[in-house]
Amino acid sequence: MNINEKEQQFKTYLAEIDYYREALMLIHWDMRTKIPNKGVEQRSEVAGFLGEKIHQLQTSNQMEEFIGELKHRSEDPILVKTLEVCEEELERNKQIPHPLYKEFMITQTKAEAIWQQAREDADFNLFQPYLKKLVDYNRDFASYWGYEDNIYDALLHKFEPGVTVETLDHVFPDLRKSLLSLLEKVQASAVKPDPSLVQFHFPKQDQASFTEQLLKQMGYDFQSGRLDETVHPFAITLSLSDVRLTTRYDEKDFRMAVFGTIHEGGHGLYEQNIDPRLVRTPLATGASMGIHESQSLLWENFIARSYPFWQKNYDLFLRYAPHTFQNVELEAFYQAINEVKPSFIRIEADELTYPLHIMIRYELEKALINKEITVEDLPHLWNEKMKDYLGIVPSTDREGVLQDIHWAGGDFGYFPSYALGYMYAAQIHHTLSQTLDVENLVQTGDLTPIKDWLGKSIHQYGKMKKPLEILTDVTKESLNPDYLIQYLQKKYGAIYQF
Amino acid sequence: MNINEKEQQFKTYLAEIDYYREALMLIHWDMRTKIPNKGVEQRSEVAGFLGEKIHQLQTSNQMEEFIGELKHRSEDPILVKTLEVCEEELERNKQIPHPLYKEFMITQTKAEAIWQQAREDADFNLFQPYLKKLVDYNRDFASYWGYEDNIYDALLHKFEPGVTVETLDHVFPDLRKSLLSLLEKVQASAVKPDPSLVQFHFPKQDQASFTEQLLKQMGYDFQSGRLDETVHPFAITLSLSDVRLTTRYDEKDFRMAVFGTIHEGGHGLYEQNIDPRLVRTPLATGASMGIHESQSLLWENFIARSYPFWQKNYDLFLRYAPHTFQNVELEAFYQAINEVKPSFIRIEADELTYPLHIMIRYELEKALINKEITVEDLPHLWNEKMKDYLGIVPSTDREGVLQDIHWAGGDFGYFPSYALGYMYAAQIHHTLSQTLDVENLVQTGDLTPIKDWLGKSIHQYGKMKKPLEILTDVTKESLNPDYLIQYLQKKYGAIYQF
Repeated sequence: MNINEKEQQFKTYLAEIDYYREALMLIHWDMRTKIPNKGVEQRSEVAGFLGEKIHQLQTSNQMEEFIGELKHRSEDPILVKTLEVCEEELERNKQIPHPLYKEFMITQTKAEAIWQQAREDADFNLFQPYLKKLVDYNRDFASYWGYEDNIYDALLHKFEPGVTVETLDHVFPDLRKSLLSLLEKVQASAVKPDPSLVQFHFPKQDQASFTEQLLKQMGYDFQSGRLDETVHPFAITLSLSDVRLTTRYDEKDFRMAVFGTIHEGGHGLYEQNIDPRLVRTPLATGASMGIHESQSLLWENFIARSYPFWQKNYDLFLRYAPHTFQNVELEAFYQAINEVKPSFIRIEADELTYPLHIMIRYELEKALINKEITVEDLPHLWNEKMKDYLGIVPSTDREGVLQDIHWAGGDFGYFPSYALGYMYAAQIHHTLSQTLDVENLVQTGDLTPIKDWLGKSIHQYGKMKKPLEILTDVTKESLNPDYLIQYLQKKYGAIYQF
Repeated sequence: MNINEKEQQFKTYLAEIDYYREALMLIHWDMRTKIPNKGVEQRSEVAGFLGEKIHQLQTSNQMEEFIGELKHRSEDPILVKTLEVCEEELERNKQIPHPLYKEFMITQTKAEAIWQQAREDADFNLFQPYLKKLVDYNRDFASYWGYEDNIYDALLHKFEPGVTVETLDHVFPDLRKSLLSLLEKVQASAVKPDPSLVQFHFPKQDQASFTEQLLKQMGYDFQSGRLDETVHPFAITLSLSDVRLTTRYDEKDFRMAVFGTIHEGGHGLYEQNIDPRLVRTPLATGASMGIHESQSLLWENFIARSYPFWQKNYDLFLRYAPHTFQNVELEAFYQAINEVKPSFIRIEADELTYPLHIMIRYELEKALINKEITVEDLPHLWNEKMKDYLGIVPSTDREGVLQDIHWAGGDFGYFPSYALGYMYAAQIHHTLSQTLDVENLVQTGDLTPIKDWLGKSIHQYGKMKKPLEILTDVTKESLNPDYLIQYLQKKYGAIYQF
């Protein structure tokens, strides 16, 4: 068989994996938005079956053969990169003995159900034995995968290839210091935004209509996506031509849905604008969790929480929410949606305190994986760090160590991506602002040039580039937390007058 | 390997087929209700892939082996019936040469797209060459499948096993005569229902809420299903615990959504109440198209279009549609929703003229397959028959021969199931009325005994029984069209006073 025929065979093989993936993603979307209660049990079996099929195809002898035969012969850059990604995936999976992986999967499924109960009851003891096992599995996996300096690097690599403990320990302390100093200034300020100004009743349907207008302004394509309601908001890619968003509504506080949807819209815009030549390859997705988060945060914080954005959209907002907000001046509104106030729940945190929530998690999971602390220590260490970083202590573990699903999902090494994404966003936003008159574009509602610049600089590549490669290609600089600090300093200095 | 192990293997194999089916059904549902436009192309590839997988598993050597090894050895009645159904499917598929089937599939896909265009333009010539090919393929298939008396029997068998041309030619002429005589009496009557009485504006959302109430009254389980909007209403079974309905709304005429949803609800109720022991086997569905239709029509016509039903529900109706219908008396309302009037479009036909639409199609397709007429003859023969049976002639083929999708879908032999289902419904309703005080139950809204009786007599069996076996088991009689005639005579004699 000549190389062209082999390449063709490989593409067909990849397409098959992607057919399973697309079907599975539809099941995931449906299970979180539409499925009737009693349908869940049988649908879970179907999801398990399709997931297993994908895993089999990714780790088969056939896959190994394709890689062996094409690796140094293919010249098509998309295929070259695809082979690289497939090989990495294969290697990672091959190194874990199958029985161990299966045990992990069973434990993980149980752990997630137990965690939900534990969170509801604010009972860490219930969750503790499962968490312990999940930490052990992750340590085992990390050992199988291997690492140079720190065992935690092997886990980080899964979510943010190229980023290590060294990177994080280099940037986080300075960032922390700067954030705490800003927080002190905020707390000492005489300016006190009044969030009650924006906590009026705003019917769900009107929030949805308003948010759809904002998504359209961003350039999110409703011909290639849709917006539904869910309990835990997410964006999901069925195909590059069907990238769906979900949100949840609080009729007493529109901020949840509006900023949440724009956040997911940032993820959606990324995937909708990946080069269609990558379709049916594993490259047709974002470069990493961190780069993905940079896109959602860039739209949510740097654009949608900015003053020019509301200069443009406040009238529209008032049209969708008549009678209730009419007496609120734009200035007071802007302050209210940007109130800085230490709080317990990560996903409800303001722009300034958010990274501190991430650092707490990073420090704890790094120490756990390195056996410097034990699972039993977690609740009190969590509370100590909350006191230390944010000056507040949760009254129950429900508002503390039990709040996030990640650990119950068996994911360690994931949290740093959130903070990395935020720093990437600031750095990318800085470059963007030097290229385009962002303030003016946002103020006039002309967001197309921004969308196009992000598409050209980042989105189109999908997984063709590594995350740090994208960052340096776009910003001509390696990771630099100063941009985030400068952004926060400038924005909150103006709001809180320091 | 002993028989138990082999049976276990076979069950696992069947489950795999069903996983693919369930995933494919979700895709079908999504494509008709939720998918964004641009997502269709790629999703179609996934649907094709899954469909092919199912076909492969149904016709594999492995399947042949299972049948060979288990057929005369399994004693579990569910497995025995499953093997029978699998073997029939295998035999049918095996007899068609693969290239011929593939050609057919390609032509059929094209034909459907062309038909849509042809219908839009009312241009039969555009569709004619495709229809000609589809008729030829069906003739070829019928020859491969074999038949005793009439080639058309082989096609009928696919949708309504046990029913033949002999059966239909025995019942249809009498039925036709009776219907035409009733129609004459209706047209001679001085009673003229006024449909404009019920053609008030009724907002979509309120129609949906009202219809949901009716579905709950029927016993449709929203924990195992849901109701969505679509262009062409349908019911679809993802699993027995997830049976979804769709409907469409006309804000100027609520009858479309209300009766349409109850119709689909009848299909849904059937599938929701199949014995759960049949899950993950090919028996977990209705016995045939005709039996399925008997359930939807029993609810739609015999119950929901009856006077007692509106005695119970008219107040509720007025609560959901206030201001507009308040001056319409129940009696006039009842007449309006039961107006008999020859019309062009089958799916909009009243209870009395509906079977005439089916007979026209049956006579034409039987003659086509038997080479007694040609595809070129269809438009004028259609119009002649319309004149003959209904006394009206469509002004374009769009309202005539081009209106239904079935032929474009390559389905010949399907239409009779609609009329059969109607006769089954009348016969089953007669037995039901002898067992329970249906009128009183409907009038008090206590539909549970009806639902339970249908569940016990019909639904639970799924495909464990053949259609005519169900009919005779339930009604202790073979197919008898008199029940339908008596029902129509009584109902419309009362309304039109003859």
